Amino acid sequence: MRKRVLSGMRPTGKLHLGNYMGALYNWVRLQHEYECYFFIADWHALTTDYSDVSKLPENTREVALDFLAAGLDPEKCVLFVQSAVKQHAELHLLFSMITPLGWLERVPSYKDQQEQLKEKDLATYGFLGYPLLQSADILIYQPDFVPVGQDQVAHVELTREVARRFNQFYPKRLTAEFNVGVLPAVDIPILPEPKVLLTPSPKLPGTDGRKMSKSYGNTVLLSDPEPIVRQKLKPMVTDPARVRRSDPGNPEVCPVFDLHKVFSSAETQAKAREGCTTAGIGCIECKSWVADAIVAELAPIQERRHHYESNPSVVKEILHAGNLRAMARAEQTMLEVRSAMGLAPAEVGIAQ
Amino acid sequence: MRKRVLSGMRPTGKLHLGNYMGALYNWVRLQHEYECYFFIADWHALTTDYSDVSKLPENTREVALDFLAAGLDPEKCVLFVQSAVKQHAELHLLFSMITPLGWLERVPSYKDQQEQLKEKDLATYGFLGYPLLQSADILIYQPDFVPVGQDQVAHVELTREVARRFNQFYPKRLTAEFNVGVLPAVDIPILPEPKVLLTPSPKLPGTDGRKMSKSYGNTVLLSDPEPIVRQKLKPMVTDPARVRRSDPGNPEVCPVFDLHKVFSSAETQAKAREGCTTAGIGCIECKSWVADAIVAELAPIQERRHHYESNPSVVKEILHAGNLRAMARAEQTMLEVRSAMGLAPAEVGIAQ
Ligand code: SF4
Ligand code: SF4
Repeated sequence: MRKRVLSGMRPTGKLHLGNYMGALYNWVRLQHEYECYFFIADWHALTTDYSDVSKLPENTREVALDFLAAGLDPEKCVLFVQSAVKQHAELHLLFSMITPLGWLERVPSYKDQQEQLKEKDLATYGFLGYPLLQSADILIYQPDFVPVGQDQVAHVELTREVARRFNQFYPKRLTAEFNVGVLPAVDIPILPEPKVLLTPSPKLPGTDGRKMSKSYGNTVLLSDPEPIVRQKLKPMVTDPARVRRSDPGNPEVCPVFDLHKVFSSAETQAKAREGCTTAGIGCIECKSWVADAIVAELAPIQERRHHYESNPSVVKEILHAGNLRAMARAEQTMLEVRSAMGLAPAEVGIAQ
Repeated sequence: MRKRVLSGMRPTGKLHLGNYMGALYNWVRLQHEYECYFFIADWHALTTDYSDVSKLPENTREVALDFLAAGLDPEKCVLFVQSAVKQHAELHLLFSMITPLGWLERVPSYKDQQEQLKEKDLATYGFLGYPLLQSADILIYQPDFVPVGQDQVAHVELTREVARRFNQFYPKRLTAEFNVGVLPAVDIPILPEPKVLLTPSPKLPGTDGRKMSKSYGNTVLLSDPEPIVRQKLKPMVTDPARVRRSDPGNPEVCPVFDLHKVFSSAETQAKAREGCTTAGIGCIECKSWVADAIVAELAPIQERRHHYESNPSVVKEILHAGNLRAMARAEQTMLEVRSAMGLAPAEVGIAQ
């Protein structure tokens, strides 16, 4: 039995190199080793963007294309759309009953994001509860691991606390018929506590030198054609001390070199470092090398993207099949959850 | 087209005369006039009783029996169990995204109930959100009216506010193809604001003279056999000023007479009033008359109850069929809701 893994991403539109290196690149590797569930978190997009949903369908489609383009293989992992698997909402509601308000108010991202997104009104019930929706997203697949970046570790910790509390209130009781009458009844947890599988997140600056992020407008998209990649990198911020071509530079403080570290071969990195520190190359040349490496990384991704873009019905079928597989797995957990909580099993309508 | 009506009741176990006169009695009459949806709110039971769910399945069964016993007719109305219709949880989640925390914190019952149920830990996310779950319970059936008692009017008011906010963010746009290109596009609301249909709630004291309530242990159950009804009423509190048999009493301050007003004929009421104020009858006799009236009211109810108790599979089938009808109606609303919010339609998995 392979260990199970679950992770999701908000549909923010076409994905960029930061999304890729911070998650997708890793997911593509995990799918060979684990039983993987990866989803597009469209309900989560509503927590911050409820007041304008006009872009949501398109953003969801673009993220689906980027998932497949990046190399997530529907034969190897389950790809699905969160809002298609209603069981997440059901478990979220059930978790709400047992979760102290204080737990949610103390999640670090709660106050942080309200600060950062001051222009949006985030004093909503759903924004307070979104880490609990994440807990439901995760626990409903009873995964062993959750691959997340450092910034999401607090959410997985909350998820573990919710699981503990749930298991304490609603244990599954194995009675004598299972343990041959020798032992007393044994309680086993329905929702095992998943562990964090920390995704290595290399430093990935955008063209302005800050962290690459859609909100900064400094991104290189996975779907950017070669000329756009080169055009975006050309004016990229470099070592600010290297003013003239004849000044030697310091790669360790240069955002362009951070990209070299991620995308260029050791050989190219050595050549760039040497050229930079000796003023042997200009920044334009250095950037063209990093552009070469990025274009090479993106080539197979874009080839797959073109394939799926020209076959939208295939994408629909992949997601449809993924949704059904996710639903079946989620329903398996929910049967146990409902029974332990004294609720109606699916469709039968009254607890036994 | 008959107007639509929706109401629900928490599964608190066997129902008493207070539950009957405060809701069921009225529902039975409504089913002839309206398209009615009545449900057992088992998810709501968790908001206050999440820490012990051991009685929930039994309580749900008992309430289902009492619904049918009271005369709700599965041919005339839809009877269902809330937790069987997952769409309620889905709409609740979607509402959470647009609902300001302040709206929920200001619902009068929020602080009141926390005060009253101090022994329970109600500082949970779900307890804060339960009026929003009610809003979803209601609006998902797009009803014209919600029959509730005075104490629930604030919740319907919140429901109307949520509907307004939803309709403002997510209108259904009727474009030229519908209005023959003459008018500009028209926005119509997906969730009409339902109106309160105030349930007349006669004063119904329990045996200790306080409001009849399970938590006071002063109830007469719909399922109490005749000897139990008589036994419970015998020591009932009366006009405290009537100490001796020879003292005349005042029916207007006597809880027993409140029961006469609800259950006895005008003739019996007149006879009791006359006998009381002239000291012509004793309280024991007066109580036996009210017991006669209650026993007569309960006779057909208990006859139906016995029928359903001895045919549990019939009850299961009734609820199963009701759940399916409720689901189909709820899904009809959710198709519009999901489309307006840019979410995946049911099972297809990706918005068009
Ligand atoms: S040569 Fe390369 S590493 Fe050096 S400052 Fe210019 S861009 Fe940065
Ligand atoms: S006679 Fe009847 S109405 Fe008068 S005090 Fe006794 S119980 Fe009450």
